[in-house]
Amino acid sequence: MKSSKPFRGMKDVLPGEVERRNALLGILRSIYRSHGYLEIETPIVESLDILFGSGGGENEKLTYKLLKRGEKLDLDEATSVDDLVDGGLRFDLTVPLCRFYAENLHRLPKPFRSIQIGSSFRAERPQRGRYRQFTQADIDILGDATVLAEIELITASGHALHSIGINEFTVRINDRRAIDQILLKSGVDDHLLQTTMIALDKLDKVSPIQVVEEMQQRGLPIKIAEAVVDRLSQVSPHRVLDTLSDLGAEETTISSLQKIHQNCAHAIKGMKVVVDPLCVRGLGYYTSTVFEVSHALSPSSIAGGGRYDNMLSRFGLDIPACGISLGFDRILNTLEEMQLERPKGTKRIYIIFDQDIELENALAASREYRRAGYSVSLVSHRRGSRSPMKRLATEAEELKRQGSLDEFWFQTLSEDTEPRLLMH
Amino acid sequence: MKSSKPFRGMKDVLPGEVERRNALLGILRSIYRSHGYLEIETPIVESLDILFGSGGGENEKLTYKLLKRGEKLDLDEATSVDDLVDGGLRFDLTVPLCRFYAENLHRLPKPFRSIQIGSSFRAERPQRGRYRQFTQADIDILGDATVLAEIELITASGHALHSIGINEFTVRINDRRAIDQILLKSGVDDHLLQTTMIALDKLDKVSPIQVVEEMQQRGLPIKIAEAVVDRLSQVSPHRVLDTLSDLGAEETTISSLQKIHQNCAHAIKGMKVVVDPLCVRGLGYYTSTVFEVSHALSPSSIAGGGRYDNMLSRFGLDIPACGISLGFDRILNTLEEMQLERPKGTKRIYIIFDQDIELENALAASREYRRAGYSVSLVSHRRGSRSPMKRLATEAEELKRQGSLDEFWFQTLSEDTEPRLLMH
Repeated sequence: MKSSKPFRGMKDVLPGEVERRNALLGILRSIYRSHGYLEIETPIVESLDILFGSGGGENEKLTYKLLKRGEKLDLDEATSVDDLVDGGLRFDLTVPLCRFYAENLHRLPKPFRSIQIGSSFRAERPQRGRYRQFTQADIDILGDATVLAEIELITASGHALHSIGINEFTVRINDRRAIDQILLKSGVDDHLLQTTMIALDKLDKVSPIQVVEEMQQRGLPIKIAEAVVDRLSQVSPHRVLDTLSDLGAEETTISSLQKIHQNCAHAIKGMKVVVDPLCVRGLGYYTSTVFEVSHALSPSSIAGGGRYDNMLSRFGLDIPACGISLGFDRILNTLEEMQLERPKGTKRIYIIFDQDIELENALAASREYRRAGYSVSLVSHRRGSRSPMKRLATEAEELKRQGSLDEFWFQTLSEDTEPRLLMH
Repeated sequence: MKSSKPFRGMKDVLPGEVERRNALLGILRSIYRSHGYLEIETPIVESLDILFGSGGGENEKLTYKLLKRGEKLDLDEATSVDDLVDGGLRFDLTVPLCRFYAENLHRLPKPFRSIQIGSSFRAERPQRGRYRQFTQADIDILGDATVLAEIELITASGHALHSIGINEFTVRINDRRAIDQILLKSGVDDHLLQTTMIALDKLDKVSPIQVVEEMQQRGLPIKIAEAVVDRLSQVSPHRVLDTLSDLGAEETTISSLQKIHQNCAHAIKGMKVVVDPLCVRGLGYYTSTVFEVSHALSPSSIAGGGRYDNMLSRFGLDIPACGISLGFDRILNTLEEMQLERPKGTKRIYIIFDQDIELENALAASREYRRAGYSVSLVSHRRGSRSPMKRLATEAEELKRQGSLDEFWFQTLSEDTEPRLLMH
């Protein structure tokens, strides 16, 4: 006998949750479409060559790789596992989007505003509420080098979050160029910028002392590490832009952040927008603006993104790009935590009948009820035996609890009397 | 520079097709829900142990397998590729459904009517219009041993097909037990039943002589092979059940087919239901009823299914099961062939403005138009330079052609005059 557990780190979704997911994704789609975005789909699998454009690094360790098939697979000749694999499950939707754009650009508008909703896969250590297959809902703008892209992306995703019931949230924005400029002014060596950034990203999770230690381990002199952490962790929220400027960020960078902030700050009810020098994002591919969306009831950010102007160059294109990805599973958890009243689900009629003598009547009745907008469940039941209503009521109450049923009734058929509709 | 082609045998989906797919899947979901089915989701990945419950066979060759990760992966110790892999991409939705049911049955109604919509993966030889990642929309009934399950499944999927615009189609039904009984009466050995069935399945694709040859290769004496092909390929459509009975099918089998036929034949407008002794289905797991749905404009069947009463026993459960799977990509191709008028798409306004001086006005105008139900696309354009309208019109016409846009207008902003709405 086999285990019925899902594959390690992955998850089965019960009916109530599937309905909730589909309803919310429907709202996201319609809001994003109203902002001029068009939805695309790309395969779950990409070649490893495309997934690891610039070396792989952390992502490569977390990626599910596919064994070659047929004659291409030769264990005896393989000198390393790289010889045995050719594809991998995508770890985000951004790399596939860039490949898609390069492949189809002559059939797409310029700039191209894309929606992509689908599963990504990362073999991270399993944790409560985090799964190795997870749903992302991304929007991106390819081909707009101006801050209009950032403004549109923050506004549209804020509108979308608000529409699905996330009504108080904070968008933290920053610009990697500002941090680079400040780090350089603080005496950080050019080749240590990226690694210092990765350490800085942890300032909201661990203590400043630990961050300084990590910077030392990454090669930064302790004096400089201390100065950097000191300066950036003590910026007053009331005069962030001025302080960044004082610390060495250049005028164009400050003006870019200011324009984004100014046009987004009052755009969506319940959306707070702040410039946060400690928002740097883990990923290597961002080139300037980065943003992250947080909610009081979510332990980690519910959305994040930024500008990645160099990624299309993998495909020989010089096209600027910017995007934001909603972590749909985390958003669902957050809505769960908010304990909102759930949207009205399904009204169901259970038709109880004896299959040997009433099949055609039951099928006819089910057609009528469906036309009237009910979900109909046929229950075959031998005349004279014990009524199934009690068992069905227990089941229906469980479905109500799971959120996939709202009201239910029983309908019995009988040879002698008119059909009876029994309200529960 | 990297190639931007999708992974071998897989497919990018452009915006017009994504919208069509989503609209049709929405209709399928709502029809199936009205028939009392509940939607579930299972991971894309299953352990190989679960995928190949009974030996694997043909499916195993077509399955994408996942390399183990971390310490579990050890090339030096591996004696065969089996030591290097632990999971695989699902090749259908039926095996995952059975695992899901075994894992969650205490939280599900009995019988359980499930909807599952998602991607399956098979590394078949790439062909025009057939892809290695494809969408299936399955409904199944677990826990009903009577023909009510078959009747409900055929009626619900017929209703669903009709509702998305497939208005003339044929459901061919058969019962593997009938064929088994006839083959046994014709002198076929018990252990050759399965292999003879696989050869018989090809009678609608190749000549009777070729089928006889294949049966011989599979170990059947030529006399018996000829008799079997002769008998089954010449059943008159007007008296199929009588003929099957004459040839040796047992009364309970005939009565089961009759009851299904009788209750489905007039259930859905445009749905023809016929008993076809040559409909046997390729897969090994079917135990009695099998069905296949064909359409004049589709070269291969657009749906198929049957009863698989033994599959849950892999998980120690004695539960009868029956299901039907819509080949969603083939259905989409068929609708394309039918050249129906497409559903009304999006109305879009292009707001053309100078970002340096009109950004706030443009954002405000875009909010107004969105509230009025339009999709809004912001077009930044420097005052005094050449108008982008001609380029935008070309793009919009391409989107109309792809089916993701229906009507469009241009809106210009100006300091001096009222906003002008230019109809195209």
